[in-house]
Amino acid sequence: MTGTAPSLSTGNTAPLLRFETQLLQRSADIEAWFRSQWHKTAPPFYCSVDLRNAGFKLAPVDTNLFPGGFNNLNPEFESLCVQAIQSAVERVCPDAKSLLLVPENHTRNKFYLENVATLFDLIQKAGFHVRIGSVIPDLREPTDLTLEISGRTLHLEPLQRTGNRVHLADFDPCVVLLNNDLSAGIPPILDGVEQQVLPPQALGWHARLKSHHFGFYREVARDFGEVAGIDSWLVDPLFRNCGQINFLKREGEECLVSNVELLLEDIKAKYKQYDIKEEPFVIVKADAGTYGMGVMTVKSVDDVREMNRKARTHMASAKEGRDVTGAIIQEGVYTFETWGPEHHTAEPVVYMIDRFVVGGFYRVNEKRGNQENLNSPGMSFKPLAFESCCSHPDRTLAPDALPNRSYAYGIVARLALLAAAREVAASRMLAKAA
Amino acid sequence: MTGTAPSLSTGNTAPLLRFETQLLQRSADIEAWFRSQWHKTAPPFYCSVDLRNAGFKLAPVDTNLFPGGFNNLNPEFESLCVQAIQSAVERVCPDAKSLLLVPENHTRNKFYLENVATLFDLIQKAGFHVRIGSVIPDLREPTDLTLEISGRTLHLEPLQRTGNRVHLADFDPCVVLLNNDLSAGIPPILDGVEQQVLPPQALGWHARLKSHHFGFYREVARDFGEVAGIDSWLVDPLFRNCGQINFLKREGEECLVSNVELLLEDIKAKYKQYDIKEEPFVIVKADAGTYGMGVMTVKSVDDVREMNRKARTHMASAKEGRDVTGAIIQEGVYTFETWGPEHHTAEPVVYMIDRFVVGGFYRVNEKRGNQENLNSPGMSFKPLAFESCCSHPDRTLAPDALPNRSYAYGIVARLALLAAAREVAASRMLAKAA
Repeated sequence: MTGTAPSLSTGNTAPLLRFETQLLQRSADIEAWFRSQWHKTAPPFYCSVDLRNAGFKLAPVDTNLFPGGFNNLNPEFESLCVQAIQSAVERVCPDAKSLLLVPENHTRNKFYLENVATLFDLIQKAGFHVRIGSVIPDLREPTDLTLEISGRTLHLEPLQRTGNRVHLADFDPCVVLLNNDLSAGIPPILDGVEQQVLPPQALGWHARLKSHHFGFYREVARDFGEVAGIDSWLVDPLFRNCGQINFLKREGEECLVSNVELLLEDIKAKYKQYDIKEEPFVIVKADAGTYGMGVMTVKSVDDVREMNRKARTHMASAKEGRDVTGAIIQEGVYTFETWGPEHHTAEPVVYMIDRFVVGGFYRVNEKRGNQENLNSPGMSFKPLAFESCCSHPDRTLAPDALPNRSYAYGIVARLALLAAAREVAASRMLAKAA
Repeated sequence: MTGTAPSLSTGNTAPLLRFETQLLQRSADIEAWFRSQWHKTAPPFYCSVDLRNAGFKLAPVDTNLFPGGFNNLNPEFESLCVQAIQSAVERVCPDAKSLLLVPENHTRNKFYLENVATLFDLIQKAGFHVRIGSVIPDLREPTDLTLEISGRTLHLEPLQRTGNRVHLADFDPCVVLLNNDLSAGIPPILDGVEQQVLPPQALGWHARLKSHHFGFYREVARDFGEVAGIDSWLVDPLFRNCGQINFLKREGEECLVSNVELLLEDIKAKYKQYDIKEEPFVIVKADAGTYGMGVMTVKSVDDVREMNRKARTHMASAKEGRDVTGAIIQEGVYTFETWGPEHHTAEPVVYMIDRFVVGGFYRVNEKRGNQENLNSPGMSFKPLAFESCCSHPDRTLAPDALPNRSYAYGIVARLALLAAAREVAASRMLAKAA
């Protein structure tokens, strides 16, 4: 197999084919439902969703409100991104002329810097004055970075604040676009800013919990199941969560053990219902986002009880050194998509701007198995841009033909987008009430 | 020259290059201005604009609110059309689930039928239930047409009406999309319908006057000239109009002669200002739209005085047999774009859905000269799809590089779109006042 897209290497793809067929038949109703949902709850500015395709199940495993990786998208869909950015900005600030982009601080990640340059370019092409405001603490003056991969130049300027407005020396933007996930908390310079900040600071990973997101996702998947006429489990990873865990001190271990046990039983029941022969497994992750750190694959309660010191240290580590204080135990979804003659595991990542799917790419990993997390520290993946933009089906082709499989990816990714939209709305309501 | 896009074959391209440079430099301000305009006046559902590029001047010569030719667009930009249709429907009817497409009656035009099939497909891909309601008087029952070119099938159903709603046998749409320019007037079945009809029936060619459109365009071009820092003449064809002309009876000839004379003088003054050596000319057209019929190229008042019987009959003919009752005398814009080794004249046509440019094509004509109308009866043009979608510039390239020239086309086409938007708004106000 050296085709232009990954292939599914599993026997039991019948449920997925039924699912894809159903999506095609009901696409107008599904799209009408999505439209009605966006009227109730505005979509976030942008979002990327990691999916896993087990053949019998297609589900999101991570929803990123501050997506990097725009440089990995197919350049053919650039105009689609441009058009979607125009819609996104118009939704939040119809009069916006200028936009300030606040990226992550890690200027040594050459891939991430390409993402910033691509995002900058897209916003400029969408017709906005755009500049980059950095929150790197020791950045004292404007600095040009020449990018190692593309040779493009990034002009970073230190973010300044006057009263409740952030700005650059001679640039007072209407909108602040965060591409910084605020893992280390909201920097004081961005706290209580009067400009529109997108996505809202409160959704940074310092505060956001995966269990909140997947709680909203569960509701969304149920509603969608009714509209699409499918069992929502086909798109929804089961989960449970534990509030207080300290892996190093072995505090909260019993909560983890009992939840792992209950969740494995629930998955077994579902596997039995659909005659799935694979072995169920769960993923234990830090509930607060961690850039893929602190993730463990578990097949039995013994895996938890027998964690060694090294595994405990791994689970306790999180981005920028925060302790893990809560854990989410999530149904593991096999990745049965593989790429190339050596069947490397491939995981789709779908990108959305506003309510529009604008493409995506596969993370192709040469070293990881089909039960493991492909977005881990030190992980080297090869991005493989989608050929299709995932936004619409092609009825002249089979339900599992590439554009239609991509459309299914786009639908499931938008379910996660809708869950994120409800998360944002809930956080705004909380902020108002506070 | 056998490149992939037409080339400009004229000496005096300096004004255009200055213009293109200016557009690149001011694009963020221009886009902000467009956004502010769309908030004041909603764009029509869709629109195509015929442009002519004289090198020293780039101007619209025809703005079609019921565009055919979607089949001529680059399939690469399909997803852009889909996304734009979603925005367009959402703007007028957020809850719309179903859409009725009403095409022209001429089922023998194999090119037009391809357009209907492409439009149908795009609307379906945008996530709507769509069916085709025909107003062909003798269509008694649903009929399948197999298309000669693509082999696709069109399912035409006779439009029905109950009370103030139009529908098909078992299909009650929220929105009616006209792809029928109503040259013969509003069919009774569509008159006073309670559903949203897009574009509004009142903008059909039975009622629409080119002089109204270009009157609005003149205002738009002036405003744009200030924002872009250019002389609006560079994008605005001068015009005058005569109210009552009967070419066969030679009534109104003096009005025509004097206006041709005044207009030629105005053009000469502009040519002198910009050191343009070409000979000025004007186009005399029926003020009511005519599918390219009744169009005459005039270089002096003598051309009008010496019209022979045949020319008079030609001018008096109009689509579906209506008499010409008014005429517009418009500054002729040379087409200095040519295609291929034989330098065939090429005229760009830009397509828009909602406020988004979604591509276009060149009309390449083997028989017509650079002062003639390329959209004439019996005219055979070869469509040449744009490689670029025209929606955004590329700052890494020269101002006259293909994506940037296309961006300039997209801007001028959107000026015409904005003029059409004001036309629609004015017609709605008139309807309310009536």
